Amino acid sequence: MDIDLNADLGEGFGPWRMGDDEALLGVVSSANVACGFHAGDPVIMERTIRIAGARGVDIGAHVGFPDRQGFGRRVMQIDAGELAAMVTYQLGALGGMARAAGQRMTHMSFHGALGNLVAADAALAAVLVRAVAAYDPALIISSSSSLAIEGAAAENGLRVATAFLADRACDDAGLLVPRRVPNSVIHDEAAVLARVRQLLADGTVTTWSGKLIAMRPRSILVHGDTPGALALARSLRSEIEGAGGRIVPISQQLAEQGAAQT
Amino acid sequence: MDIDLNADLGEGFGPWRMGDDEALLGVVSSANVACGFHAGDPVIMERTIRIAGARGVDIGAHVGFPDRQGFGRRVMQIDAGELAAMVTYQLGALGGMARAAGQRMTHMSFHGALGNLVAADAALAAVLVRAVAAYDPALIISSSSSLAIEGAAAENGLRVATAFLADRACDDAGLLVPRRVPNSVIHDEAAVLARVRQLLADGTVTTWSGKLIAMRPRSILVHGDTPGALALARSLRSEIEGAGGRIVPISQQLAEQGAAQT
Amino acid sequence: MDIDLNADLGEGFGPWRMGDDEALLGVVSSANVACGFHAGDPVIMERTIRIAGARGVDIGAHVGFPDRQGFGRRVMQIDAGELAAMVTYQLGALGGMARAAGQRMTHMSFHGALGNLVAADAALAAVLVRAVAAYDPALIISSSSSLAIEGAAAENGLRVATAFLADRACDDAGLLVPRRVPNSVIHDEAAVLARVRQLLADGTVTTWSGKLIAMRPRSILVHGDTPGALALARSLRSEIEGAGGRIVPISQQLAEQGAAQT
Amino acid sequence: MDIDLNADLGEGFGPWRMGDDEALLGVVSSANVACGFHAGDPVIMERTIRIAGARGVDIGAHVGFPDRQGFGRRVMQIDAGELAAMVTYQLGALGGMARAAGQRMTHMSFHGALGNLVAADAALAAVLVRAVAAYDPALIISSSSSLAIEGAAAENGLRVATAFLADRACDDAGLLVPRRVPNSVIHDEAAVLARVRQLLADGTVTTWSGKLIAMRPRSILVHGDTPGALALARSLRSEIEGAGGRIVPISQQLAEQGAAQT
Repeated sequence: MDIDLNADLGEGFGPWRMGDDEALLGVVSSANVACGFHAGDPVIMERTIRIAGARGVDIGAHVGFPDRQGFGRRVMQIDAGELAAMVTYQLGALGGMARAAGQRMTHMSFHGALGNLVAADAALAAVLVRAVAAYDPALIISSSSSLAIEGAAAENGLRVATAFLADRACDDAGLLVPRRVPNSVIHDEAAVLARVRQLLADGTVTTWSGKLIAMRPRSILVHGDTPGALALARSLRSEIEGAGGRIVPISQQLAEQGAAQT
Repeated sequence: MDIDLNADLGEGFGPWRMGDDEALLGVVSSANVACGFHAGDPVIMERTIRIAGARGVDIGAHVGFPDRQGFGRRVMQIDAGELAAMVTYQLGALGGMARAAGQRMTHMSFHGALGNLVAADAALAAVLVRAVAAYDPALIISSSSSLAIEGAAAENGLRVATAFLADRACDDAGLLVPRRVPNSVIHDEAAVLARVRQLLADGTVTTWSGKLIAMRPRSILVHGDTPGALALARSLRSEIEGAGGRIVPISQQLAEQGAAQT
Repeated sequence: MDIDLNADLGEGFGPWRMGDDEALLGVVSSANVACGFHAGDPVIMERTIRIAGARGVDIGAHVGFPDRQGFGRRVMQIDAGELAAMVTYQLGALGGMARAAGQRMTHMSFHGALGNLVAADAALAAVLVRAVAAYDPALIISSSSSLAIEGAAAENGLRVATAFLADRACDDAGLLVPRRVPNSVIHDEAAVLARVRQLLADGTVTTWSGKLIAMRPRSILVHGDTPGALALARSLRSEIEGAGGRIVPISQQLAEQGAAQT
Repeated sequence: MDIDLNADLGEGFGPWRMGDDEALLGVVSSANVACGFHAGDPVIMERTIRIAGARGVDIGAHVGFPDRQGFGRRVMQIDAGELAAMVTYQLGALGGMARAAGQRMTHMSFHGALGNLVAADAALAAVLVRAVAAYDPALIISSSSSLAIEGAAAENGLRVATAFLADRACDDAGLLVPRRVPNSVIHDEAAVLARVRQLLADGTVTTWSGKLIAMRPRSILVHGDTPGALALARSLRSEIEGAGGRIVPISQQLAEQGAAQT
């Protein structure tokens, strides 16, 4: 069993830090790096890319609303076409910094309020995913389970790697339960680990309502800004490796799968 | 005689416009497009790239300080390494938007206070030009006459296209006379045209002190934000074509020269 | 008949201008000055305050969302309590600059998407109007017709001066018809003037649906950023004075009314 | 012996925190609150003001360059007149928020690179201190020893409260030794405490060169963003109170002195 361990990183800004990026980059296999809109700046992006590259961690763009003060978690009413330009800008900025560092940007994901919108709105997903494909058709979209994104990706010939948000409850359709709903965020580390154990062993998730659904994600996502993120990432890594699994970046999983199919 | 007609464009922000980009893009052969730091935003960048691409105008990144309120004209005391990260970010953003639009970013130039600093400081030029080369060794640097930039470009294997700022006085070494010096900016259109006529006919410029110096620029720069920019650009185009010259983008000039040398 | 002629001003940012503030300040009797969130910056605010003060024009704060790129016209999902802090911040900034210039801030109004939200949402209006009252209970709120704002103002002991948006259609309840609705913005100057003439003569407005409703505004608002703003303002002034009316700032109208009641 | 214990606070931004403001507000007697230019935002300002007010801590404006990414520590080449407008804007914003919270802003200080500039440049100090006086002649300026600021304050009828930066070396003229000079920042807590003990006992400071100079500050400043800030503040408080001193806010010291002189 190969699985990717993924974290949102580079979420500082100027003098401010969020999470322990350097330590997390020693544990995860792929990083979603903020691109300067909801968090991050060129200096932090360069540093994150450099460390990730040195450790063989996949580098992806974490694309968000232009709202640092709100950390990209406040919905902004922006036309889809304008959002598409903002997505391309962020992909270009991170992709260009990776390229200048001799690295390759392998994937992208949508952050926060933008991520919630696009996962639930097929029309918006169509526009933004087309923008991703226009920038680089080889990019992988990392996303929690979403028919909108998966459909748009299929239409544009993009690959999607489903990410399992270990500390977030999902509903019977596999969609994230909103943060405002009670018990939507799972704070107990033992419970989070148990969910991952079940996923690895049985390929199932127990939903918020108590039902069992099947899920085969390529990736498990850790929120880099939560207090216990580093300890949780380490526990997840131990759990997976203890169960005989391998931590493998998404790009490598897909490359190996591609090679196997040939 | 082939010469490029070049303008700083895309210098609006959000609801605010500066200059008549669309009209200027019908006259010039290359555009330095603001990248969202001193001016510009993703929506304006996309629009400028689209129009430039449709008209065969060369697209370049106009890279500046992170200071919209000061329009990149105020010196900021930023470490060279941090500035390099900002340069790469801006190149990536514009280059990525060009790529998504099916266009190629051919060149870059430094804007405003950053441009003045880097043109005069060999140590800073070494760091920033290296960053340009790390991003894309095929990029052409468009710059007014500067030993610092030319030296750094030579070391990094980058090509420089010298730009003649037709409405700015230069000193006996060919460097721009600072804006604060009286008569450093030439407002009289007839005088500007006479300078260009002399340059095209004799390959000389009369300096601020009255001396004649030799100059063979590839490009003539028009400031897109000055009131008479469009009329001046049209007059320059007539002047050049009337004298039997051709308006040819820098990238094409260098490509033809490369082909000729082979 | 006394009426205030009011315009949104100081809507430039850094090097960018919007409208001809200086000329408009020679025509209107009160100004809503942007406070640096959706437009404006300290330099522009100071200049606008100085000119307004010299001409006896009432100075008010035009308070908006923190979104210059979107000019405060994009809804942002921000908690009411956080918005209240942003309102206070902007009032303080403009009020402080007026005070330093020896002037007094007499009124405030809500801009763009924030204005639309608060005019339609009594719960939000309660929070934001309370913030206005906490900053200065003597401030007048300038607003198009809105039960939400009028109700909250009454509860907090604040005075409201209703503004008539001469170039915007209203519905049978007196509320603005949204910009997206066809014919909601009236571009024909003659039609705008006719509406003002009718208002002054009969105290009525013909609504978007064709019905006649009564309205007795204290103020007529001109949008400073529309192309013909200056000409329209002059025509309105002529129209009002030709009909025997006086252009009187809101603060003076209320002061005279207060004196009359005593 | 009465002395004020002072800290720079409210230096977070959006989701990012810096230092433990709440704990520090339980130890110090005055706070310099960031105003949204180099750090801080309306939400953080309101919270800091509320807690400070509840604990009887003096509230002051910490005024800086408009550069969050550089935390106001990078010099920006801005005209004095424009800087004055920015100073007034920040004073108004913080003063307005204090007023809305039923508090009074008692003092102000200049932050970071702006603070260094103004302390060393009499011409700049003249312009900025005049702006402070125009906003509120009752404001106290808190500053490390600076003839430029003291001179400008005297001319404008403003009071200055000299602050001793316990963890920073000073030269024989009492000016701060720049951060770039070796040993300019004193990291050893015991050494810092010894300096304060000497100051309280003898009214002297040992300069960077080893000389003894006289100093009678009203305030001791703790940098809120340094890791051991809270522990240091507590130790300082114990040290002062153990030596029989009282921790008294500047405004109260000056009021008592004023009363005593009458």
